[in-house]
This record gives sequence, C-alpha cells and structure tokens, in this order.
Amino acid sequence: MSEKIITVDSEKIQKLASKIFVASGLNKSDADTVADNLVQAEMRGIRSHGLVQVANYSTFMRNGKINVNADIKLLSESISTLAFDADFAPGAVAGKHAMERTLEKAKATGVAVATVKNGTHFGFAAYYALDAIKENMIGLAFTSSSFLVAPFGGYERVQGTNPICIAVPAKNKRPVVFDAATSNAAYNKSFFAYTEGRSIPDDWGLDSSGNKTTNPADIVKKGGALLPFGGYKGYGLGFIISILTTVLSGTAIAADADGSIIEKTNGIGFNFAAIDISRFVDVDAFRKTVSLSIDRIKQSKKQNGVEEIYIPGEIEWNLYEKSKKDGLVLYNGVASEITRTIQELGLDDSLENVRIG
Amino acid sequence: MSEKIITVDSEKIQKLASKIFVASGLNKSDADTVADNLVQAEMRGIRSHGLVQVANYSTFMRNGKINVNADIKLLSESISTLAFDADFAPGAVAGKHAMERTLEKAKATGVAVATVKNGTHFGFAAYYALDAIKENMIGLAFTSSSFLVAPFGGYERVQGTNPICIAVPAKNKRPVVFDAATSNAAYNKSFFAYTEGRSIPDDWGLDSSGNKTTNPADIVKKGGALLPFGGYKGYGLGFIISILTTVLSGTAIAADADGSIIEKTNGIGFNFAAIDISRFVDVDAFRKTVSLSIDRIKQSKKQNGVEEIYIPGEIEWNLYEKSKKDGLVLYNGVASEITRTIQELGLDDSLENVRIG
Repeated sequence: MSEKIITVDSEKIQKLASKIFVASGLNKSDADTVADNLVQAEMRGIRSHGLVQVANYSTFMRNGKINVNADIKLLSESISTLAFDADFAPGAVAGKHAMERTLEKAKATGVAVATVKNGTHFGFAAYYALDAIKENMIGLAFTSSSFLVAPFGGYERVQGTNPICIAVPAKNKRPVVFDAATSNAAYNKSFFAYTEGRSIPDDWGLDSSGNKTTNPADIVKKGGALLPFGGYKGYGLGFIISILTTVLSGTAIAADADGSIIEKTNGIGFNFAAIDISRFVDVDAFRKTVSLSIDRIKQSKKQNGVEEIYIPGEIEWNLYEKSKKDGLVLYNGVASEITRTIQELGLDDSLENVRIG
Repeated sequence: MSEKIITVDSEKIQKLASKIFVASGLNKSDADTVADNLVQAEMRGIRSHGLVQVANYSTFMRNGKINVNADIKLLSESISTLAFDADFAPGAVAGKHAMERTLEKAKATGVAVATVKNGTHFGFAAYYALDAIKENMIGLAFTSSSFLVAPFGGYERVQGTNPICIAVPAKNKRPVVFDAATSNAAYNKSFFAYTEGRSIPDDWGLDSSGNKTTNPADIVKKGGALLPFGGYKGYGLGFIISILTTVLSGTAIAADADGSIIEKTNGIGFNFAAIDISRFVDVDAFRKTVSLSIDRIKQSKKQNGVEEIYIPGEIEWNLYEKSKKDGLVLYNGVASEITRTIQELGLDDSLENVRIG
C-alpha cells in the first residue's frame, strides 16, 4: 500500500478530530475530550492508541457501538469507593469523569478506587493516571480489552491485553509513567506491520494452530493470539487486571434466565485508583527522592551498545516535546482513513488545513 | 557439598523454628508468626523464602539486624491510609500488624493503603495478601529489597527484586494469587544453584562487567546483577514498586545535615492495600465469575508439549496440599544450617524430633 506521508500540527488536528466526532453525533465538550485523548497518545508515540482511532471511533459513534447520548450513572458509592456504569459512552469521557471523582475522594480520604462497567475503548491509560499528578497523587488506571492474548502455555485468545498504568510525581514536570499492555506487544503493532507488509518478531504471537509466527496476518486476519510479556508473570498480571476491571466492575457478571451466574466476556471495564502522597510523607521530599532515584538509575553503567537507560515514560515525554515542536507525522493509512471519514461525513474541511509538512 | 536430605512434618518444624526464634530473643507470639511465615512459604514451594531463612533470621535477631524488642509505631493515619514505622521488627510481625489494620480500615471505607518504613525481610508477600481473602477482599502486598537488579539496558545493582503480590477470592478455597519478583528469578534461586554447583539460565543475570552468565557465582559472590523479567516492562514495574514501598513509606527519604534531601538506599519498606469487593459487586457473583474465568482459561487449548495451563498461584496450592500430607523435604544445606543454629543456641532439641522421613 503506497501512501503519502504528511505532517500535521497537533493542536489543529485535535480540533479537526473533534469536528469529526461532533459530525458523528457527539456533543462538543465530549468530542474535545476524545480528540484530546487520541492526540495526546499520538504525541507520545503511542500510535496504536492515537489518530489511527479517529476513523474507528467515528464509525462506532454512528453505528451505536459508542453511545453518543450515554447517561453515565454512579451505581454505588462508599467512603473511598465508586462504581460507575458508563452506558457505552466514549471511553475517554467515562474515564475522565470517573478519574475526576476518584481524585476528589482520594483528597478527602487519602485513597480511592473506582470501577466502570459498560465501557468502550478508553485510549491510552496514562491519560487518566496523569490527572493524579496535578493533585500530588499517585494515579493508577487499568482497562480490559477484547480477548486477544493466550495464557502462558496456551494459544487461544482467552484474555485481553489488559494494560497497567501507574504514574508517580517527580521533581520536575516529567512524572514517572509506567504504561504497558500485559501482552508482549499491543495488537495494533501487528496491525501496522500487516498494513505495511512488514514481518513481526516471533515472540509477539502464535498462529491459530499454536505455532510461532513472524507473519502479522496470522494475528490480524487468521485468529492467532498475542503472547503475554515475560512468560507466566505477564500472563498472571493480565489475569489479575481482568478481575479488577471486568469482574469487580460487574462487566463480566450477568445472571442468566435461571438467575445463576454466567460470565460475559465481551464487555470492557475500567479500574482507577489514586493515592494522596501527603497522607504518608512530605510531598516535596517525595518528589525530590523520586528524582534522586531517577538520577541514580540513569547514571548507572550501561550494557555494551546501550546509549541511554530510560526511566518509565521518559521516551514518551521526549516524543511529546518533539511532537509539540515538529508536529505529528501520519503513517499507516491514517491520513487516508481520516480523509475518507471527512468525506463520508460531508465536512467542509481537509487534512490540508492542518498540514505543516 | 554432600548432604543428608530429610523430610519433616510441617507443624512440628513450625514449632521448632518458633523455639529457635524464642531462644534468639523474640517473644513467643511473634516467634510463632515468623515461623509460620517461613513454613507457609516452604509448603508452597517458595523455598527461597522458606526454611532457608531460619538460620539467617536467628542470626539477625541475635546481632540486632532484626529488633526483637521493636516498638511498631503508627506514624500517621487518615480515613483510608496508615503509615507505620516498624522499628526493624521481624518483617512478618510488622507486616501482619499493618495488614490487619489495613483490613479494618478497608472494611470501614471500602479501600485502604498502608506503608511501613524501617522494615526487615517480610518473607513471601502472599502471606499478607491472603489475609484479605478471609474478609472477602482483594489483597495487595509489596516490599522493597536490597539492590540486586539491573535496570533495562544496564548492569549495575540499582534496584531491588521488588515483588508484586495480588490475591483475589474465587469460588473455592483456592484464591487466585499472583506473587512474583520483578526480577527474572529470585536471588536465592541463584544462591541455591551456587551451593549445589548447578549452572543457571543465561537470562537470570549479568556478571559484574555486564556480560551474560550461566555461573551463579557471578551473581552470588562477584557482584553481578539480576535481570528484570520481561525486559523494560518488568524493570518499569520494579521501579514503581520501589517508589510505593521505599519513597512513599519514607524509608528512602532522609534529610542530610543541611536539611536537604538525600536518598537512603538500604532500607526496606512495605506497602499493603485491600479492596472490599462488596462495595462494588455482590461477593458471591464475584467469586463465581472469577471461577468461570479460571475454567475458561484452564480449558483452553494447550501448546504442544504443555500438559496443563495453570492459574496464578495454582502450582503453589498444589504443593501446599502435598506438603500437608507428605511433609517438607529439606535440601540445600537447610537442615545442616538449622542443626548448627540449634547447637549454637544450646537448645535441647533436634531435627530428628520433627523428622518423618
């Protein structure tokens, strides 16, 4: 697939994406949130959760898979907990709302946990965890995903990629951000390789018969499964995250006709948490000590051929600053999908209007 | 090193270990707790945190590295948080105390987090997380450790093995228990290989010059570093756990003479959390749905050569039940170290009294 590669301004593409979501049925405020979520991911180099989703989300808003008129409900609340039903709202909208309430509660009690059932794709997890940093808190965000990953020793898709995100304040404006799928590689990395005709490393997934593969079509088109990261440890963490997101939220719980319990496996659930640092130690001392830990590790000896030791989230901060300055490069058919969507919606706009290179 | 291998009864060796700790200066109740912690680990096959520690702990109790007269203090408390100073009490004693208070708080508010500073080795992390199961809660337990692990791309010991444990109730009496170091393998696995003259897999660690090694002496005797599990993901999780345990507890925070902040890197900190399931969903439905998830994964297709797909913690439950029935086999000089300790303390007792094979 040959394709024109273009560079766009990050603020302008955010506005264009928001316009697309409004034309797809969403209100302006929520459209801004969803567009911001995708642009923030793209700026951090998390392309699998970036502008590639503009066309997908627009389709889902129009076909009802994302509910543009969702009524997000608080199902239950206790001193330090919240349980929401997102009513299939755009994931970023439900996620932001739930995290905001989680931070309020954590401010009052020191720590809070919220679950969200009936969610839709919430983009990159750090979007929510980072909100905690502004409040001098540690932020945690988890989501389930559709089943794509094999258990350790197996080859069927019986588990989501179930990412883990934890963000921790440091001295400067660059918090430490761990944000990673519990699969070896995000599904869309195989998808990008497939659309570009590239092969993939042989530890990303198995074909549908359980054999190793370097052909992304085995994963993307033929039902092969992704592998967990780090063998049984990544598998185990993925299993736990599925419980915290789907079962604890009620996403995976349903009564059948007889009132007995069946497991729903197709819903998406979220789990957010926040910990108020000031309840434990002085916040400035905490921030400075985290920075000292960062320095110690960054200054430690590097293996042959390694140029730099990175702190969790550091590469994404570097890319974020570069994107602010240099704009965003659209690869992988992303530009043509956005253009197709603009045309489908009959919008009087174009990527040319946001292009800078 | 040639050695007699003996089998002992788990209840009787627990009593003998407790007697050793009492003779080492600890009161009876705390000695029982510490002995129980080690026997529970050994029964689960976590030998690195099992009876191999009896002699070590006894030495530490006598030389003051473990404080047998510790005064565990609550430093601060808020609605859903607790911060303790363990005063270098035996880790299991401080850990049990902190987790007990965490569960009380979580019962009242839905979720609670506790930190512990000035800790000592707390044994296996599931010992604390499992306490949450009895209260229909999800339990989390983390600890820092002395620096043994290299960062991703590096080869210096600049991070602990920093394990993660999360326990989740299921329908039967076998909760799901994820409990793993963020290094590829626990340090004592290299130690055991060293004492037995075995080589180790080449992804466990690097020698002190940063080269791959299969010689455990490079790790145990020559300052080489362990490697994180799953590359940058296990390293990143280890980094986050170090923040939650050492920095959030104040273990790694100290003011120098000028009042400025320096990082202490030699202290051990813990972090415990509990989440009350009933605040989110019906507990029976939760337990049943977790069991359905277990069934779905266990019944999925296995890779060639794989006999069974295991749920996190399942192998340990199998070993636990086997140990109850068949007793505990003491390998690796463990028996001779215990015998030496009994003699040093001048106790009128012997492993022969607890032996069953």
